[in-house]
Amino acid sequence: MRRALALARKGLGTASPNPVVGAVLVREGKVLGEGFHRRAGLPHAEVEAIEDAHRKGNLPKGATLYVTLEPCCTTGRTPPCVDRILREGIARVIVGMVDPNPLHQGRGLALLAGEGVEVAQDLLEEEARDLNRPFVRWISSGRPWVVQKSASSLDGRIGTRTGDDRWLSGPASRRMAHRLRWESDAILIGAETARRDDPALTVRLPGRKGKPQPWRVVVSRSGRLPEELRLFTDSVRARTLVFQNFPLPMLLKELGRRGVLRVLVEGGGKLAGSLLAEGLIDEVALFLCPMILGEGPLSVDSPHRLLGAHFRLKERKRLGDDLFFRGIRIDYEGNEAG
Amino acid sequence: MRRALALARKGLGTASPNPVVGAVLVREGKVLGEGFHRRAGLPHAEVEAIEDAHRKGNLPKGATLYVTLEPCCTTGRTPPCVDRILREGIARVIVGMVDPNPLHQGRGLALLAGEGVEVAQDLLEEEARDLNRPFVRWISSGRPWVVQKSASSLDGRIGTRTGDDRWLSGPASRRMAHRLRWESDAILIGAETARRDDPALTVRLPGRKGKPQPWRVVVSRSGRLPEELRLFTDSVRARTLVFQNFPLPMLLKELGRRGVLRVLVEGGGKLAGSLLAEGLIDEVALFLCPMILGEGPLSVDSPHRLLGAHFRLKERKRLGDDLFFRGIRIDYEGNEAG
Repeated sequence: MRRALALARKGLGTASPNPVVGAVLVREGKVLGEGFHRRAGLPHAEVEAIEDAHRKGNLPKGATLYVTLEPCCTTGRTPPCVDRILREGIARVIVGMVDPNPLHQGRGLALLAGEGVEVAQDLLEEEARDLNRPFVRWISSGRPWVVQKSASSLDGRIGTRTGDDRWLSGPASRRMAHRLRWESDAILIGAETARRDDPALTVRLPGRKGKPQPWRVVVSRSGRLPEELRLFTDSVRARTLVFQNFPLPMLLKELGRRGVLRVLVEGGGKLAGSLLAEGLIDEVALFLCPMILGEGPLSVDSPHRLLGAHFRLKERKRLGDDLFFRGIRIDYEGNEAG
Repeated sequence: MRRALALARKGLGTASPNPVVGAVLVREGKVLGEGFHRRAGLPHAEVEAIEDAHRKGNLPKGATLYVTLEPCCTTGRTPPCVDRILREGIARVIVGMVDPNPLHQGRGLALLAGEGVEVAQDLLEEEARDLNRPFVRWISSGRPWVVQKSASSLDGRIGTRTGDDRWLSGPASRRMAHRLRWESDAILIGAETARRDDPALTVRLPGRKGKPQPWRVVVSRSGRLPEELRLFTDSVRARTLVFQNFPLPMLLKELGRRGVLRVLVEGGGKLAGSLLAEGLIDEVALFLCPMILGEGPLSVDSPHRLLGAHFRLKERKRLGDDLFFRGIRIDYEGNEAG
């Protein structure tokens, strides 16, 4: 299942609006075939693994299928995986998590069990769930998963008052920031950030292709933004959306309708503060740079009195001189979002 | 030498105003004796190690002495260690760092070498230096080493605007905070923090005894502080100092004159901002708590336009749900303070 999870991870950023899924076919400790879901419209992970096995001359009959998400039992853009699993005579199916879609939940497993296939669920369930929180949020509520990203000093500043635009973070952090963009379907910023930084908000990772650039979404009260901004003039200008005076929950729903599962919020502090105040931040991805600025704009800046949000640490690592954390919001009982 | 460094560490907080030193006597891979400097007036680490060897029936003659700091050659409160090393017939002396006191620097090693003892220096020099940065700062400039401590949210807030006084950090972080106090000779706060929080600023660690409580120092412009504060009424009130309208560099010199090697700054943000503006923060000890507050007072808050300060990460660890970092200030060429 660990291998299946690693395979699933490869689909992050490209599988949207489908969940990411990885699958491995095993018999007597030997891997017969493996695969993951690359993109909506392409074969599901289970079929990839089965076809990989056939290509290698291994028959799936009697084998065990490890798959991170319950196999589908309905026809979407591809035929149902359950039928294929039965046709191949696979003996056992072990899933990381059941399908979160209330219309399918458990149906695939029940169909398999009814045909005499041995089934088991929730193996490494937490890891499987972590991979598909955005999909779960979107399928169950229609709104995307919101990740607030920032690079700040040890005292929470994202720049100096003089608008100094040196990078705070180092090269390793900036590469990681591009990976976060790659895994997202849209990037959200406030009008002030658009005007002050004139960012491109594109994914610039060598070798990463096969999906369009994420939507670049600007929230503006006035809607007045300089026409010469890169967002309106560069080669991917068709991927820029401006929402004028739009309530944030409505904006997220609208992005959800466009198949956006995961939104990366890249500033400024006031936009992050408004999202926080409305309880709309699900995850934080924070680059902490080893300096104190003492003055200047803040990563999160709310005009309201808040209770704040608590997070459970999911990842932390050192990136060059910087520190990186990823945390998922928890409620007062410690339950994780999504 | 690793063992000697670990021994030296045990003297942190009690050896002031002496440096912390550890020593291990070894012959043919066997430890004959070991010791560290506990307190000013008590024997130095070298003598402790020699006497430990005698107690265990091991003769130091012909042995190798590992000591984190160059042995002294002058009579202070105890006789010079160099004489004792010669008298015991120790064959080799290996030191972590040479004595930073400009009056002594290298003299002890030269005396030993002149008498035929084999000497070597700078083994694990960086680690040895890290332990005694406060001593080096104090002996060379008369002012103590300044550590800015704070516990803040991911966005740099040390509380909410409503003055909510829940602890941000968890129990493991609070224990660590008491260790930081134990290692310091004085704790510095601003008048606003004194008034708002009425803190005790005492070390509360079970089993840690053998030194007075650190000085509790309040900086106030007006000098007007409520008489009923714990700082003025509790059992260690004799350890409270108030500096009214005192320039910060002068204040630090004054603490240095009282034998304070290390000052822990415990808030508020404005005091930290003033120290930062004057280039007086040498080290940061930051507890980062997994929450976003979005509003409220900041860990460092300067009224000035600043260039900021850069730090080299020396330690990071997870303490319960919190993250802890310790970093030492570096200049623009990357040289560490102290």
